[in-house]
Amino acid sequence: MRFSKSFVKTLRTAPKDETARGAQFLSRAGYVHKELAGIYDYLPLGLRVLENIKAIIREELNNIGCQEVLMSSLQNPEPWQKTDRWDIEKMDIWFKTELAAGGELGLAPTHEEPITKMMQSYISSYKDLPVYVYQFQTKFRNELRAKSGIMRTREFLMKDLYSFASSEDEHNKFYHAAEQAYKRIYDRLGIGQDTFQTFASGGVFAKYSHEFQTLTDIGEDTIYYNADKSVVLNEEVLNDEVLTELGVQREELQSAKAAEVGNIFTLGTKYSAPLGLVFNNKDGERKIVLMGCYGIGVSRVMGVIAEKSCDERGLVWPEQVAPYKYYLIGIGKEGTKQAEILYRDHENTILYDDRNLRPGEKFADAELMGIPYRVVISDKTLASNQAEITNRATGESKLVDLNQIQF
Amino acid sequence: MRFSKSFVKTLRTAPKDETARGAQFLSRAGYVHKELAGIYDYLPLGLRVLENIKAIIREELNNIGCQEVLMSSLQNPEPWQKTDRWDIEKMDIWFKTELAAGGELGLAPTHEEPITKMMQSYISSYKDLPVYVYQFQTKFRNELRAKSGIMRTREFLMKDLYSFASSEDEHNKFYHAAEQAYKRIYDRLGIGQDTFQTFASGGVFAKYSHEFQTLTDIGEDTIYYNADKSVVLNEEVLNDEVLTELGVQREELQSAKAAEVGNIFTLGTKYSAPLGLVFNNKDGERKIVLMGCYGIGVSRVMGVIAEKSCDERGLVWPEQVAPYKYYLIGIGKEGTKQAEILYRDHENTILYDDRNLRPGEKFADAELMGIPYRVVISDKTLASNQAEITNRATGESKLVDLNQIQF
Repeated sequence: MRFSKSFVKTLRTAPKDETARGAQFLSRAGYVHKELAGIYDYLPLGLRVLENIKAIIREELNNIGCQEVLMSSLQNPEPWQKTDRWDIEKMDIWFKTELAAGGELGLAPTHEEPITKMMQSYISSYKDLPVYVYQFQTKFRNELRAKSGIMRTREFLMKDLYSFASSEDEHNKFYHAAEQAYKRIYDRLGIGQDTFQTFASGGVFAKYSHEFQTLTDIGEDTIYYNADKSVVLNEEVLNDEVLTELGVQREELQSAKAAEVGNIFTLGTKYSAPLGLVFNNKDGERKIVLMGCYGIGVSRVMGVIAEKSCDERGLVWPEQVAPYKYYLIGIGKEGTKQAEILYRDHENTILYDDRNLRPGEKFADAELMGIPYRVVISDKTLASNQAEITNRATGESKLVDLNQIQF
Repeated sequence: MRFSKSFVKTLRTAPKDETARGAQFLSRAGYVHKELAGIYDYLPLGLRVLENIKAIIREELNNIGCQEVLMSSLQNPEPWQKTDRWDIEKMDIWFKTELAAGGELGLAPTHEEPITKMMQSYISSYKDLPVYVYQFQTKFRNELRAKSGIMRTREFLMKDLYSFASSEDEHNKFYHAAEQAYKRIYDRLGIGQDTFQTFASGGVFAKYSHEFQTLTDIGEDTIYYNADKSVVLNEEVLNDEVLTELGVQREELQSAKAAEVGNIFTLGTKYSAPLGLVFNNKDGERKIVLMGCYGIGVSRVMGVIAEKSCDERGLVWPEQVAPYKYYLIGIGKEGTKQAEILYRDHENTILYDDRNLRPGEKFADAELMGIPYRVVISDKTLASNQAEITNRATGESKLVDLNQIQF
């Protein structure tokens, strides 16, 4: 990207009601634009971050055999009535609307009901199982309070995955594969070290579900963990029965603020029974399909990373999710000429600050935007055919031969 | 894709109320799943087609300097009230909903108002102009009647582009660049030959707008054109004044059914004036930004291509938009072994039908799904180290050396 051509500018101030530090930087650095509380637009840099996160998730899910679809937002009430989740008293986050042709519709806050219904067209025998279907889709939730920038919003991008199995064994095998895929995803997103698989309450069909919680002071949740963090649990299951079962003592647990970045649930027949998603087993008997669901809030994860990875000067993106790897600045006549050449050869990985501004202003924007490596080429560095590369996270600078830079 | 692993199956019947032939095939071949009238889910193959269409549009728009964003669906009434498009009497396709925290919201049927408002944060001087901003975004329109499958729906994927200029010259220059980009897009989508830039009514700020209309019997519009198709116009502007201006006689015009696949409008100050999007010109005077808008219904285009490109046996995708280029079938022990090897080396371009079915059933599905080239490897073709390649569009078959196939 050539900065002089970008319609987005860095801003001196964030929206007044934006209190979280990362959220302020996301606005000021030109990643997002706030429409209303809990409703955001993604600007070119923000969209690139979302796409980077999606690409990592997609790759890991495809690797464990998942298939991608895209379902509708507008929802037929009928399957939600069958599972008793249509009434606002039962699920209070619905946005509802009316068809001009008559009848109510909802805006999907999640997709268990429509996907369970849809799968009736494609599942009839044990031979059709197991299958795993996911999407990246915009979800709508009528939250009473939106907060922390893009971490808790009314409209957000979610990856939701649903598994369909013919037996508990089949289900458990995939549940475990999903756990492992989630761990790889958070590692690749650069938050693996601070993200913990956390015991949470499970409901009727499983004793536990699992959340993935990332340590951050701005998190809305509190997690409890033992010394080596081999047992981590959330508040819901912090009781004597669970502690005994998990073999930990209350006194050895520490607590910390954390933000949920994913969750996985064993659904059993919760949706497939009322919606009639059945199959014929090997003996020709009708059985109910066993389901699981597995979510990651993509825009929420972007918000969590922003909050975790920032300092007083701006954002500090992990390399894998950064919109560009390099922030390139040319100083002086020869430095600028050389920067132009490098940029043209590597447009996809370089944000080239070709604006007619003083170097100091560019340095400040490079830090605000959190691009992993700042590359400065000046007449001085060119004397030794080098560039100065500064690591945004560590602040370390070094001179590198131009032909050694891994654009 | 390995067909045996796909959760989607081809179906013998389409939804009862699906009357258009292409729409029936899209359902039966497993591209889409119908939720309700005018509301569809995109299955893995359908999503690949959408992504192929998006990639072509994105590339052409980036080439003329456009920048991609992603705006919200949920809409603040305020900017729409300022332009007098909030009332259902003024714009009858709104879906509206209520915030739990109080207040009305709308679901965006288009984005002139929010983007005009957003650009106030980024445009203040003539130096900030021109800029061109687009998105691929889900639009909601409360149509009284939905029809023709994914051609006219209540929820659909749209590419909408907005231009912002400081002068008419600047605006006209981009308008022309957009016309040319649209022509390249339709060419690459395989419908260029049958798609015509059509004069349509322009409104207050320009005598004409332009539609791009694709000839198809299932189209909702009628277009009128002269012998060499150098002048094409729609019904709105079929009057003596326009005919005189365009230098054509009514008698020389032929008419045909067509479907609109895109449109471009000169908006002038229609939205920028009421919403106060202004800039300082070179002389320091405050001026109102001049706008244009440029739409392509991505899912609609997919529907139009499906209707145009099908025969009695199924779909016939143009190569550029097809979900896979090759439909691979192995027959016999050696043929299957060789097919497996080829598939593993080219998973991204091959739909490999490895199901335990008779060849005839596979041939029928290959035609129903409309994959451009069917590749059959049998013990017989292997005798000469060849495969039989059949062109879906022409029906022609030929034997090709295995190492000559351009996977």
